Amino acid sequence: MSMTRLWTALALVAAAGVSLPAAAQFAKPEDAVKYRKGAYQVMAAHFGRIGAMAQGKVPFDAAAAAANADLVVTMSKLPFTAFVEGTSGTDKGSPKASIWTERAKFDEAAKKMQDEVVKLQAAAKTGNAEQVKTAFGAAAGTCKNCHDTYRN
Amino acid sequence: MSMTRLWTALALVAAAGVSLPAAAQFAKPEDAVKYRKGAYQVMAAHFGRIGAMAQGKVPFDAAAAAANADLVVTMSKLPFTAFVEGTSGTDKGSPKASIWTERAKFDEAAKKMQDEVVKLQAAAKTGNAEQVKTAFGAAAGTCKNCHDTYRN
Repeated sequence: MSMTRLWTALALVAAAGVSLPAAAQFAKPEDAVKYRKGAYQVMAAHFGRIGAMAQGKVPFDAAAAAANADLVVTMSKLPFTAFVEGTSGTDKGSPKASIWTERAKFDEAAKKMQDEVVKLQAAAKTGNAEQVKTAFGAAAGTCKNCHDTYRN
Repeated sequence: MSMTRLWTALALVAAAGVSLPAAAQFAKPEDAVKYRKGAYQVMAAHFGRIGAMAQGKVPFDAAAAAANADLVVTMSKLPFTAFVEGTSGTDKGSPKASIWTERAKFDEAAKKMQDEVVKLQAAAKTGNAEQVKTAFGAAAGTCKNCHDTYRN
């Protein structure tokens, strides 16, 4: 987006009294890419630690599961403002351009993930390993679903 | 760390009844590097949004400052478990090996940053732009201090 178009957009936004468009939060598309990769990286690490418990690779630790789930919920809210136009690609792991032609469907897939990780957080708070395992599986399914559709 | 040494370490940890060593949270050193880079990336983005207000580049928005400060505080706690041995380097931006020979000093520098961002969070909660500006400057100083000493 050119600076003129950006300022026009910001003026329209100000006039409409709504919050800033997501793209305006990043000075350059590369910044958005780094940000969302960073957010996913942190989310994946903490989600993976719950997964290791769910899969019996490490002993279940209720406090650790809850702390990790809290971080997953926080991180789950972050990447989506960073899917700004001009940041799709064809490399392995990059987002497909269909995100921008089917934005409502993409946002719905994101929302499903966000809802499932909130359920995972609630399950972790119970301290019940079986509930965590079930909720982990459901949440992992929403990751996979979106990756299968929108990730190269 | 070899698997044998890892298991020995884990056995010692289990025997001592303390929590897992940080390194055990990452399967490979590269995972730790990606994780801490991701955490810093997200922290920097949200810290930078407060900075833009502090520097008068965007209008002060108390609610946005508070939301960004909350995320900065959350992220500030994350990178340091990921400074595991074998992850220093000589490239621009990589950590110096002195982190591991002066770990207590490094941890102290990290703690200073964590303390200052908590103060920034408190300042943001007041909704007072001047307080946010002052606290932002102090927090930014702790970033710079640690980068000057421990980052290539």
